[in-house]
Amino acid sequence: MSPLTTIRTVAALREAVAGRRVALVPTMGALHEGHLSLVRRAREHADFVVASLFVNPAQFGPGEDFQAYPRDEARDADMLAAAGCDLLYAPAAGAMYPAGFSTKVSVEGLTEFMEGAVRPGHFQGVATVVAKLLIQCAPAFAVFGEKDFQQLAVIRRLALDLDLPVAILAGPIVREPDGLALSSRNVYLTSAQREIAPGLYETLRDAASQIARGEGIAEAEAQARRALLNLGFDAIDYVEARAASDLTRLGPAGPMNKPGRLLAAARLGRTRLLDNVPI
Amino acid sequence: MSPLTTIRTVAALREAVAGRRVALVPTMGALHEGHLSLVRRAREHADFVVASLFVNPAQFGPGEDFQAYPRDEARDADMLAAAGCDLLYAPAAGAMYPAGFSTKVSVEGLTEFMEGAVRPGHFQGVATVVAKLLIQCAPAFAVFGEKDFQQLAVIRRLALDLDLPVAILAGPIVREPDGLALSSRNVYLTSAQREIAPGLYETLRDAASQIARGEGIAEAEAQARRALLNLGFDAIDYVEARAASDLTRLGPAGPMNKPGRLLAAARLGRTRLLDNVPI
Repeated sequence: MSPLTTIRTVAALREAVAGRRVALVPTMGALHEGHLSLVRRAREHADFVVASLFVNPAQFGPGEDFQAYPRDEARDADMLAAAGCDLLYAPAAGAMYPAGFSTKVSVEGLTEFMEGAVRPGHFQGVATVVAKLLIQCAPAFAVFGEKDFQQLAVIRRLALDLDLPVAILAGPIVREPDGLALSSRNVYLTSAQREIAPGLYETLRDAASQIARGEGIAEAEAQARRALLNLGFDAIDYVEARAASDLTRLGPAGPMNKPGRLLAAARLGRTRLLDNVPI
Repeated sequence: MSPLTTIRTVAALREAVAGRRVALVPTMGALHEGHLSLVRRAREHADFVVASLFVNPAQFGPGEDFQAYPRDEARDADMLAAAGCDLLYAPAAGAMYPAGFSTKVSVEGLTEFMEGAVRPGHFQGVATVVAKLLIQCAPAFAVFGEKDFQQLAVIRRLALDLDLPVAILAGPIVREPDGLALSSRNVYLTSAQREIAPGLYETLRDAASQIARGEGIAEAEAQARRALLNLGFDAIDYVEARAASDLTRLGPAGPMNKPGRLLAAARLGRTRLLDNVPI
């Protein structure tokens, strides 16, 4: 197959997408089958699929893995081309954040719990770069994965609030055969940690069934946290049942009145694993 | 002349501007000759001139004049039509900030002194609504007045940082025959205050000449503050000499190495007057 065209500037991007109905798949590279499923979903909606590759320093906190984050653009480009992507937009950090850059986009409310509480500033970094990418590319569609479920809610809110003329599409989580959600950070796991990791999904499914059966939400969450520690997870950042639509807290036990989502983040050594399941 | 077409929704705005090369003049209404000069400037650059009229609650602080701010849409529409405006976009507050609205745009640095120090949150309100207007209307040009000189710098930064494909144009201050800068808030002045008001411009011109002659900047600023109090101003929020390009503080006395601007805000009763002059 022909190598994927790669561009690095906003001007080149605008020229490439002018007059086209575009779907954008924003990524930080280190691609896996989850990303490729988003590219295929993008293909279903648009004639021209752009993937962006930008490891966004603004969404990493001090002490996080910005430097270590896996990077292999040539491999990513081959995978994208095979999945049907038309163009790779891979700007340099200096192009995205030139000297004097001063503007921040924040989403309040949705960013004040779970990932937002554990990673201060993370969602401001995400919101700012996603706003920039959506303005730069002006896509009709942008596709994000449900693995980062809270991020998806933040981006939907951002696009709505800023009147960006884009439809935000979600792609379901892609998993390993043993249930582990695909993540670029799974490469950090030791083989011992890799054996423990699928327990996150299993534990969430069990807890979601409990809640769906009408057992107490707080008790199901607490039990899931204990189960994860027993399985060998080193720390549990959160296990929370929330409304799938707006991430408000689900009420006390009783018949569910809206679709729920059970979301968790747990640590194996220094690696944080995120996962979520419908309730 | 034919009455000006007025629309109230983003959808109608997008339909009206589709395929056109547009210049946008954002206003809060209560129009005067200063605004009309911006409309005429817009006309020079674009085939289709849109004025927006939105008294943006987010940029008023508690205790400020949001409720009292003068509103007369019919008069504004007539003035805009006469000045060559093609379309008035006057959204309702509920359309701009629907229930659940959570996104804020902030510009750091530039907003931390002068108006930003006196009016906390003001520039976040301005940046958020201007980002929305620019995204809604997608104009090739947007025109702002130099009377709000710091706001202009904030908006230039915002447009650059968010990659908005718009050229920001500035219109010079329009003044009464006695030198008072036109402002929608001048109607608040009593006749006694109105007599004092032109002293702001005169004082700034004198101080700018002093600085241009090489006299000390800090001394010229302090002298201007004293002069304004002697003229009858009730309080001086600031008198500051800054670089016109990026509003950095001008260095100590000596030959000017970049174009400067002397900016001030002073109060007559509860009315704040802003003005600025080149150095």
